[in-house]
Amino acid sequence: MAKNSSLSEYLTVATDVAKKAGEVIREGFYQTKHVEHKGSVDLVTETDKACEDLIFNHLKKHFPSHKFIGEETTAANGVTLLTDEPTWIVDPLDGTTNFVHGFPFVCVCIGLTIKKVPVVGVVYNPIMNELFTAIDGNGAFLNGNPIKVSSHSKLVECLLTTEAGTKRDKATLDATTNRINTLLYKVRSLRMGGSCALGLCGVACGRIDLFYEIGFGGPWYVTPFLDVAAAVVIVKEAGGVIFDPSGSEFDITAQRVAASNLLVKDAFVNALQQSA
Amino acid sequence: MAKNSSLSEYLTVATDVAKKAGEVIREGFYQTKHVEHKGSVDLVTETDKACEDLIFNHLKKHFPSHKFIGEETTAANGVTLLTDEPTWIVDPLDGTTNFVHGFPFVCVCIGLTIKKVPVVGVVYNPIMNELFTAIDGNGAFLNGNPIKVSSHSKLVECLLTTEAGTKRDKATLDATTNRINTLLYKVRSLRMGGSCALGLCGVACGRIDLFYEIGFGGPWYVTPFLDVAAAVVIVKEAGGVIFDPSGSEFDITAQRVAASNLLVKDAFVNALQQSA
Repeated sequence: MAKNSSLSEYLTVATDVAKKAGEVIREGFYQTKHVEHKGSVDLVTETDKACEDLIFNHLKKHFPSHKFIGEETTAANGVTLLTDEPTWIVDPLDGTTNFVHGFPFVCVCIGLTIKKVPVVGVVYNPIMNELFTAIDGNGAFLNGNPIKVSSHSKLVECLLTTEAGTKRDKATLDATTNRINTLLYKVRSLRMGGSCALGLCGVACGRIDLFYEIGFGGPWYVTPFLDVAAAVVIVKEAGGVIFDPSGSEFDITAQRVAASNLLVKDAFVNALQQSA
Repeated sequence: MAKNSSLSEYLTVATDVAKKAGEVIREGFYQTKHVEHKGSVDLVTETDKACEDLIFNHLKKHFPSHKFIGEETTAANGVTLLTDEPTWIVDPLDGTTNFVHGFPFVCVCIGLTIKKVPVVGVVYNPIMNELFTAIDGNGAFLNGNPIKVSSHSKLVECLLTTEAGTKRDKATLDATTNRINTLLYKVRSLRMGGSCALGLCGVACGRIDLFYEIGFGGPWYVTPFLDVAAAVVIVKEAGGVIFDPSGSEFDITAQRVAASNLLVKDAFVNALQQSA
């Protein structure tokens, strides 16, 4: 009980500040159309930093003894090792390319790990006003309503989401499109949304069935798990499973993640292995 | 003046009924989570038919002398030839796979052609409450606010959207993923949303820069241009260009469409030709 009531408090504080950061993102999102491209890139940097400051200041005020991992802290201190201490992991703006272009899949991600396990997750898309929340053992919610993963058990019924990533070398690109080619024979269709966290939350609420991303992280990320930590709790609490695309256990520090419901997981892993 | 005032009246009537159909879609959209998969497919068929009836009844009441092309009329009469008469072209539910899965990119499309030229376009996404409208010569609007295409002139700055389509034979799939492979070297990133009309409207409002779809139309369509007729007006009135992916003139009866701003069109066509 004590544990859950702490987690509830953590979630409340994280949700409050995610909404505040969402207002900053929303404001910037509708400005990108009115600035030149260079301006848009500056705007994303400014928005990113403003949101990270806002979120960390708020969390530190409420939880001064906790640890914090974000883009700036990591950039300032080099590689940040995740410890057993309660640690807030924040991606202030996931979907930065979408932000610059005005494509509506952008979000704030706030996760908390205890003993290296994600136990609180908040993912907020301020453009679509969708707030995904979860705490360990207590279910997952979209705008306060319980959500669960889909019940599709056959790949052919499944909607797959992945991302094209940011790397443009031939080996990576060929691997990316070969994988898509192999998978498209087996699934119903493919979506690409441009936000890893929202892809995972899409699995959590059942609007997509399968998600994978291999080699994510790019110029905006110093630490690969900033945009995954929060969503991992949400998927698990929605009844989903998180795993490495190879089928082995998910490693939060690896740049690889896959998610689905449990019924279709083995078929999905087989298909991913055949497409490797 | 007389022409424009007629077009304004047509737009008002089309917008009113698009919103009514949107309510039907919204209701069904949130029910799909509560029915088994077979039920979802029935639900999409029912919703599709209910919306088409609603839209055609409304339009016929206001414009009894006009012609009408939709899925049912086409299915009932065989191939429907587009004539010079004022003709309403309706796709009551574009993004049917999204509808079944609860993915939020679904829309109603209502277009009007006069002398075979699309002159009124309404595309309404009732889940995101985004209403795209345009009449010939009068600009394009999103929820009443003027929109325009992006000003990106280099492919590397561009966000591309396309679709995986519904065909799953090896030749088509290989062509699809080879094209994506070639284009990914040149553009910033790729999105796949699952709605042709919303992809085109994404170009119109500048949230994406490039859109193409080759070989669209599937089991839900009898006539290939149902989901394109309305969006074509919106793209043009937003300052964009519509063309065949080969670079030749757009043919409304072909199953191929591409759109972008004028600045980047030639580079886009070159890239598409190289990826063919």
